[in-house]
Amino acid sequence: MANELYFEDFYIGQKFISVGGAKVTAEEIKEFGQKYDPQPFHLDEAAGEGSFFKGLAASGWLTAAIVMRLRVQTIKVSGGMIGAGVEELRWSQAVRPGDTLRIESEVLGVRHSASRPEFGIIRTRTLTFNQRDEIVMRGTVNFLAPLKAAK
Amino acid sequence: MANELYFEDFYIGQKFISVGGAKVTAEEIKEFGQKYDPQPFHLDEAAGEGSFFKGLAASGWLTAAIVMRLRVQTIKVSGGMIGAGVEELRWSQAVRPGDTLRIESEVLGVRHSASRPEFGIIRTRTLTFNQRDEIVMRGTVNFLAPLKAAK
Repeated sequence: MANELYFEDFYIGQKFISVGGAKVTAEEIKEFGQKYDPQPFHLDEAAGEGSFFKGLAASGWLTAAIVMRLRVQTIKVSGGMIGAGVEELRWSQAVRPGDTLRIESEVLGVRHSASRPEFGIIRTRTLTFNQRDEIVMRGTVNFLAPLKAAK
Repeated sequence: MANELYFEDFYIGQKFISVGGAKVTAEEIKEFGQKYDPQPFHLDEAAGEGSFFKGLAASGWLTAAIVMRLRVQTIKVSGGMIGAGVEELRWSQAVRPGDTLRIESEVLGVRHSASRPEFGIIRTRTLTFNQRDEIVMRGTVNFLAPLKAAK
């Protein structure tokens, strides 16, 4: 498919910026909380008030999931983006109802895969910002990209 | 609340085993895929066949979300489990429709928080197994626990 990226297309210092943003609603925060992170501050405004978060806040795993969608939309790897592990993930600011998230990813490394010779491993750092340009999450994630040479 | 854990209740080598398991359905895989990881192998059995995964597979972020729920159910921290960062997350085996996941968590470290003196930081390694006792995900995650002394 046109514009799909192979291992050979990635280089250190390459940047990917999400187009548009992802708006996070109270409904999505609560729905995700009920399914995957059922704690008062992810479920209910009033219950959140008395908590660490002082209000309703998104599960960090919802933020991570939204960031995955932004990464899939932003970095179009041939055959799909296959995760090869997270090295670090940090949540530095609560995500609140009404926040809009965007990402900036930078390639930190490219190397061939020892165990899968038809793939390379792309190491990326992704910063996630809210609408006030505050960093809400930072992560270092590796993914596979197929070798053009192995097509 | 009864049986809620404070910082002082955690110790290195302590283990937490999930009660029961989490069954993953094709419906849940596709729904999560559509929302957060819209790639063919997370959306459709037939499209998955021709992919890296050779079939429908759960997004690694769905697995991580399910594991969060199992952790919340298994480790009852007073005031809730507040994430303080992921050090590592690795997916070693695809999660398929019909798989049942369970976790084993071990405390690797306990320390006071420099920036939040009323909290400590608990470092845990969590292994996630499927019904064949294969490890599907391993992760090292830190979370906050309030000091009983600060109550």
